[in-house]
Amino acid sequence: MKLKVYLSGEIHSDWREQIIHGIEANHLPIEVLSPITDHDASDNVGVDILGSEDKAFWKDHKAAKINSMRIRLGIEQADVIVVKFGEKYRQWNAAFDAGYAAAKGKAMIVIHPPDFTHALKEVDAAALAVAETPEQVVDILTYVTTKA
Amino acid sequence: MKLKVYLSGEIHSDWREQIIHGIEANHLPIEVLSPITDHDASDNVGVDILGSEDKAFWKDHKAAKINSMRIRLGIEQADVIVVKFGEKYRQWNAAFDAGYAAAKGKAMIVIHPPDFTHALKEVDAAALAVAETPEQVVDILTYVTTKA
Amino acid sequence: MKLKVYLSGEIHSDWREQIIHGIEANHLPIEVLSPITDHDASDNVGVDILGSEDKAFWKDHKAAKINSMRIRLGIEQADVIVVKFGEKYRQWNAAFDAGYAAAKGKAMIVIHPPDFTHALKEVDAAALAVAETPEQVVDILTYVTTKA
Amino acid sequence: MKLKVYLSGEIHSDWREQIIHGIEANHLPIEVLSPITDHDASDNVGVDILGSEDKAFWKDHKAAKINSMRIRLGIEQADVIVVKFGEKYRQWNAAFDAGYAAAKGKAMIVIHPPDFTHALKEVDAAALAVAETPEQVVDILTYVTTKA
Amino acid sequence: MKLKVYLSGEIHSDWREQIIHGIEANHLPIEVLSPITDHDASDNVGVDILGSEDKAFWKDHKAAKINSMRIRLGIEQADVIVVKFGEKYRQWNAAFDAGYAAAKGKAMIVIHPPDFTHALKEVDAAALAVAETPEQVVDILTYVTTKA
Amino acid sequence: MKLKVYLSGEIHSDWREQIIHGIEANHLPIEVLSPITDHDASDNVGVDILGSEDKAFWKDHKAAKINSMRIRLGIEQADVIVVKFGEKYRQWNAAFDAGYAAAKGKAMIVIHPPDFTHALKEVDAAALAVAETPEQVVDILTYVTTKA
Amino acid sequence: MKLKVYLSGEIHSDWREQIIHGIEANHLPIEVLSPITDHDASDNVGVDILGSEDKAFWKDHKAAKINSMRIRLGIEQADVIVVKFGEKYRQWNAAFDAGYAAAKGKAMIVIHPPDFTHALKEVDAAALAVAETPEQVVDILTYVTTKA
Amino acid sequence: MKLKVYLSGEIHSDWREQIIHGIEANHLPIEVLSPITDHDASDNVGVDILGSEDKAFWKDHKAAKINSMRIRLGIEQADVIVVKFGEKYRQWNAAFDAGYAAAKGKAMIVIHPPDFTHALKEVDAAALAVAETPEQVVDILTYVTTKA
Repeated sequence: MKLKVYLSGEIHSDWREQIIHGIEANHLPIEVLSPITDHDASDNVGVDILGSEDKAFWKDHKAAKINSMRIRLGIEQADVIVVKFGEKYRQWNAAFDAGYAAAKGKAMIVIHPPDFTHALKEVDAAALAVAETPEQVVDILTYVTTKA
Repeated sequence: MKLKVYLSGEIHSDWREQIIHGIEANHLPIEVLSPITDHDASDNVGVDILGSEDKAFWKDHKAAKINSMRIRLGIEQADVIVVKFGEKYRQWNAAFDAGYAAAKGKAMIVIHPPDFTHALKEVDAAALAVAETPEQVVDILTYVTTKA
Repeated sequence: MKLKVYLSGEIHSDWREQIIHGIEANHLPIEVLSPITDHDASDNVGVDILGSEDKAFWKDHKAAKINSMRIRLGIEQADVIVVKFGEKYRQWNAAFDAGYAAAKGKAMIVIHPPDFTHALKEVDAAALAVAETPEQVVDILTYVTTKA
Repeated sequence: MKLKVYLSGEIHSDWREQIIHGIEANHLPIEVLSPITDHDASDNVGVDILGSEDKAFWKDHKAAKINSMRIRLGIEQADVIVVKFGEKYRQWNAAFDAGYAAAKGKAMIVIHPPDFTHALKEVDAAALAVAETPEQVVDILTYVTTKA
Repeated sequence: MKLKVYLSGEIHSDWREQIIHGIEANHLPIEVLSPITDHDASDNVGVDILGSEDKAFWKDHKAAKINSMRIRLGIEQADVIVVKFGEKYRQWNAAFDAGYAAAKGKAMIVIHPPDFTHALKEVDAAALAVAETPEQVVDILTYVTTKA
Repeated sequence: MKLKVYLSGEIHSDWREQIIHGIEANHLPIEVLSPITDHDASDNVGVDILGSEDKAFWKDHKAAKINSMRIRLGIEQADVIVVKFGEKYRQWNAAFDAGYAAAKGKAMIVIHPPDFTHALKEVDAAALAVAETPEQVVDILTYVTTKA
Repeated sequence: MKLKVYLSGEIHSDWREQIIHGIEANHLPIEVLSPITDHDASDNVGVDILGSEDKAFWKDHKAAKINSMRIRLGIEQADVIVVKFGEKYRQWNAAFDAGYAAAKGKAMIVIHPPDFTHALKEVDAAALAVAETPEQVVDILTYVTTKA
Repeated sequence: MKLKVYLSGEIHSDWREQIIHGIEANHLPIEVLSPITDHDASDNVGVDILGSEDKAFWKDHKAAKINSMRIRLGIEQADVIVVKFGEKYRQWNAAFDAGYAAAKGKAMIVIHPPDFTHALKEVDAAALAVAETPEQVVDILTYVTTKA
């Protein structure tokens, strides 16, 4: 079974690369979609292209809307969304993506360290698998796409 | 215009009561829906009703799923969802609800302090109004439902 | 047959009052929904409630989004949308509402003077009736709701 | 990320060619869809193929319906719709397309001169980006499809 | 269980009255919706309200579109659609309604004489019951709404 | 929060009455929907109303389709579906209803004895709660509808 | 613009071949889908594959359901449905397909002789073009898919 | 007509291989999708990848959710779902899949021995064909995809 997988969340570790490496190493029939992960570019894209803003709110607003084009299309095109929560930052956008995917009926795999279990219980409750590592995600994707 | 409004997010301040008071004081034709806000009850409902669990994960899981019945029905029945982000806790469930509501095409009003502007830019970008106080939400609801 | 009817478009003539009067005079089982038609209030609602803006664009943006809550809910709740195009202003919002309603599969009645026929051909093509006067709309609503 | 982009609106300037040129120059993985932009052909297609009409209304009606086949399929197939408003004509069909796209949940980019800001505020409020030039649209499409 | 039932098709016999009588006699919790069954009024409504036409096609077209408001809203509001095919006329509108209802996932009961079995096999295949008489429809509605 | 609850599955014990009694005893704002539970009537309804069949298959077919009117409308109108699996019979219709409800995005509560855990794992995986007794279902419904 | 076109209706003339020939002659980027047009095979497929029936009703029923697999998939996959009504037979299945396509929001072209105008007014009212000949349909498809 | 076919149900006989063989032997333009049919792997996948569980319920739960990724994607991608019920086990998951497919509006073919007719009447009532053997399914697929 061929899949499209969207990788949402944390942009400060190499978890996406680990999953992509695992997909390639196992020759899985999977296409990977991701948001823009260049932090500076994604923060500034609104004013860079559409002109400067005095207020931080509107600078962020213009950037977030342009970024949302790729994020929403990515989630909607995907068969499976993987959402990773890490130690840094509040990551409300990851939880927002998870809620968006849940409402669209997408299969969801969540990755987070065990100590986030209580804080992420609503997100985990909407997932089909809760993993701790990218390797586990690769194992699930291998099983789902290639097992006889 | 009659509305159903769902109040999502923070459960450690009296912001819901302020909005409900404002709705009643202005005699607005609005029905308010809320999640269960009794923190202990909502944490323990799974094991209280369906039996104990050794692992914290499954205790949380059973509770989160029962709570999700009211949350999802509330969002789906609502015309407008108001999501409040406060200072305490990570509030991933509030962001999850916001994503869920966005995917369902619901009108959304977000409330948060100005210093969360950057961290909540993706959520704000999906909202029709970003307020700082419950009073502003009451003003919007008054305008939308009663203005000629 | 009971109906909800949304009246979109021109706010500088009394066409809404004429239709409402006709509905009442004929005792039709119809609930009428409308956008906010107080021009000044609707232009300023964003900055009035949520704080001032230096740029005209953002002042308009905040207002348009709050107004869109009532407009979209009105169209979505309606069984029939009536869109009136008049002589004044560009009225792109009326055409936007018509496109929105068409995509939602709503029954649509358009009102416009005959000399707009060519300019409005795409809108008319999506309508179930093209009228010139509010009286004709009342006649159609009377027929649809009360004829044996 | 591959995209399908529908270019709606003004047919009296070369803005479509500018965007297509930019897409080709940047080798973007984008397929462009457009309405029929031959003004005479699109005005007369109804009577040309299906037979003459005495009334201008029905001539326009037959043409508009045939043209709507390509317009609606274009919008529905597209991931992103770009709508351009220019100085000439009333362009209600552009606003209609924008409303149609908004109701279908499509990502939308609007192009218009700054002096249309107030008249187009409802359309802009439904867009993910408001540009002034085709170059800015090419920049956004480049960013969304090719940025790492 | 409360139901809304739409009665589509033949307008030259009293089958609607028989079903309505049966519903009333059995005190069933059913609301009945119908198209306009005044043949002359429904043929002429377009030109009567919106002005005369030289071509029969456009006279019919304007009437059919106004009538379609009530027909489509009736089918969409209904839980069950009953479609009756009789001996007279071609009744393509009845088959059109049946196809429309099938695509909307509505429960459908068809009434027709046995000798139409072959000609109506595609319609019957989409129905949940194929009856020969209005009495059988009343029996089914009684069973569905009142049986313990 | 008001709810509509559909009770699917086993018809050979009094579990529906227990849940209804619990709802009434707790004055819950819940409307209960059920299939027809008169076994003989539901087996014979097809031939009783629409005429006899020689083959058992068609007798069953006609009955099952008439019964499906109430079952599908019940599931679609419900906010929550409760599905009970008991010791007797194969109860494929209960599992069919569960799948139908899952695909419609309905909140689902399953009731079954612990020894069915392995056989019902796919059904349980789609549920928001897995109970062993009707009392637990009443507790969940009380919590969801009345807890502050 | 590439299209998929489904050809519904009359099976006793060579209109499908004429359209297919026109598509090929004009090198249009169109894929054609059709129902099974072998009359005998389509009448008997149910009993031929699944076993004999004593009653004509069930023989027809089994055939109609198997045929509906291809018909419904064809309509659902198509961008445009062409429905032809001819002189022979009642052709209720053609009208049923038209209603089904209308409810699915498909672009529809109807072909019929002028003397069916009144009887087909409800079907025509749901179409984007009403043609009299297959050549006109080829002209429309050529215009829609290849015009600049 | 190209098809995607999902084969649901019984995993203890070679019926899938028979259908796949028939598809290949007849060179049908059909892509086959299946669940994971390695019984041990599918029972243990949850604990194998995501860690051990003390309770059988959670072991099954984790496995069933991972398996549901492929099952639901398979059903949703399929044009036709074939569900086979055999003599062994309770097969509630097959009936669940059938209900899920019915709610999604998928074409469904059921295979079962004649003595299951009464127990499966609700499932059969939602099917477009009820077969007894894999050969009959191949015949239907051959007819639907290749008959002129």
